Amino acid sequence: MNEEITGFRVRYPEIDRMGIAHHSHYFVWFELGRTEWMRRRGMTYRQLEEEQGVFFPLIEARARFRAPALYDEELQVITRLESISRLEVRFEYRIVRPEGGRLLAEGITGHVAADDRGRPRRLPVELYERLHGGSAPSSEESSRA
Amino acid sequence: MNEEITGFRVRYPEIDRMGIAHHSHYFVWFELGRTEWMRRRGMTYRQLEEEQGVFFPLIEARARFRAPALYDEELQVITRLESISRLEVRFEYRIVRPEGGRLLAEGITGHVAADDRGRPRRLPVELYERLHGGSAPSSEESSRA
Amino acid sequence: MNEEITGFRVRYPEIDRMGIAHHSHYFVWFELGRTEWMRRRGMTYRQLEEEQGVFFPLIEARARFRAPALYDEELQVITRLESISRLEVRFEYRIVRPEGGRLLAEGITGHVAADDRGRPRRLPVELYERLHGGSAPSSEESSRA
Amino acid sequence: MNEEITGFRVRYPEIDRMGIAHHSHYFVWFELGRTEWMRRRGMTYRQLEEEQGVFFPLIEARARFRAPALYDEELQVITRLESISRLEVRFEYRIVRPEGGRLLAEGITGHVAADDRGRPRRLPVELYERLHGGSAPSSEESSRA
Repeated sequence: MNEEITGFRVRYPEIDRMGIAHHSHYFVWFELGRTEWMRRRGMTYRQLEEEQGVFFPLIEARARFRAPALYDEELQVITRLESISRLEVRFEYRIVRPEGGRLLAEGITGHVAADDRGRPRRLPVELYERLHGGSAPSSEESSRA
Repeated sequence: MNEEITGFRVRYPEIDRMGIAHHSHYFVWFELGRTEWMRRRGMTYRQLEEEQGVFFPLIEARARFRAPALYDEELQVITRLESISRLEVRFEYRIVRPEGGRLLAEGITGHVAADDRGRPRRLPVELYERLHGGSAPSSEESSRA
Repeated sequence: MNEEITGFRVRYPEIDRMGIAHHSHYFVWFELGRTEWMRRRGMTYRQLEEEQGVFFPLIEARARFRAPALYDEELQVITRLESISRLEVRFEYRIVRPEGGRLLAEGITGHVAADDRGRPRRLPVELYERLHGGSAPSSEESSRA
Repeated sequence: MNEEITGFRVRYPEIDRMGIAHHSHYFVWFELGRTEWMRRRGMTYRQLEEEQGVFFPLIEARARFRAPALYDEELQVITRLESISRLEVRFEYRIVRPEGGRLLAEGITGHVAADDRGRPRRLPVELYERLHGGSAPSSEESSRA
């Protein structure tokens, strides 16, 4: 299964004057989901960065906001690998209120593989396979996961 | 002229372990630009919220990241009204490094007009006209600004 | 028992260029602890604010940093009510690494009771008693909890 | 003169549900002041970190909040070197509303000199002298600046 669910709670400094979460924090929640998605596949950012020298800087981020997230409520971010090649990775996210199942927001992030100076590099095959959940493609074409 | 330039400096807590600005902050910088764009047309968020009861919650946000923003550098956000109707407003942004003119990121935000409970409402005509820089359209169609 | 333990994980945008959590986030973690402390006594900020019209703006905050918090590690904030009167509340916090029990930071926050405009007010007796875990003092003197 | 004044504007995501700035951001504003204080003495954090390998992790932070900071207002942080030795540096801050001169908050931060792994080190003499604005003391005693 390609999807992971991560629970979190909306923090006080994340809400703004309207009493709802400021939109910039949704991208932080997406990141919580992405981090957890990777952890459950045996990879942590820390390991990737420190042991493998692989970083995943963003090249793109998008979100659609459908209903406001309120202070202190428990929400979930549902994270899915959308596509992967040895050069790029894309994740999809949905923020949902578990009670009632309402979709509050959805979005994507696109990443390149880079070294610690931000220069593009290829994902090591072994890492690619763990992310992808299968064997590496012979070409560099993105494979829908 | 539809475009406004706002200078800002990258703050220490905005950078991450790669030594570059975390992507969530670009949306805060976009907001700095949008705030300034409105202020220069005689509107502040505070006034809009307190005097007119008009809020602009986001329904969409997107960014493309082209080159990293570094700690302590002085950058500019260039803000443009992309489109406006009495129900929706869209802004476009570019983050540039003035020295050399490099484009670091670009993006958009889409907003609805809402009351203080987040319920959709129409922009008051007078406000619409000030934002739009012209007279209100007879229909609700978005007019490219 | 006056003390509550709340777990949390260090988020990516909370770390800075040194690879350690930026000090401003410790005050957010203290707040996570304080929120949880209150929730376990049947009070949420949201309820307090919306139903009772009671806010707790800070008048003071302090922290001592003893060892750095690292990215993605699971930490605990241990929160204790230090003192309470009908006008002021003080909490004490320790941030610890559960594995090994190392103390990373400790601090306090002092709060006044206020209405929704920030004007000082007295805590309702019933609320005071719930926070205090006993009956209200006859005088306004702070009672060490 | 030991004091520097740095202007800044309160950003939208810095305010919370009470419509006032969240207390954690005051420590970010203190840092803006400290950064500027150093820049005006010819030192930037970036230089210190990259060229000299000197970091200034915090060991202590304190603030007293006297009046709320409101959205979008222009404020100043007034920064003063309180004391310095080759092992520790302390700064004092006041956040003021220039119009009317009201003091909104005041605080201190205490720092040690460290290398890029966070290990304590002595400040290079030349750097000490630039910060101190005089010659290095023969002993390690803190000299009130």
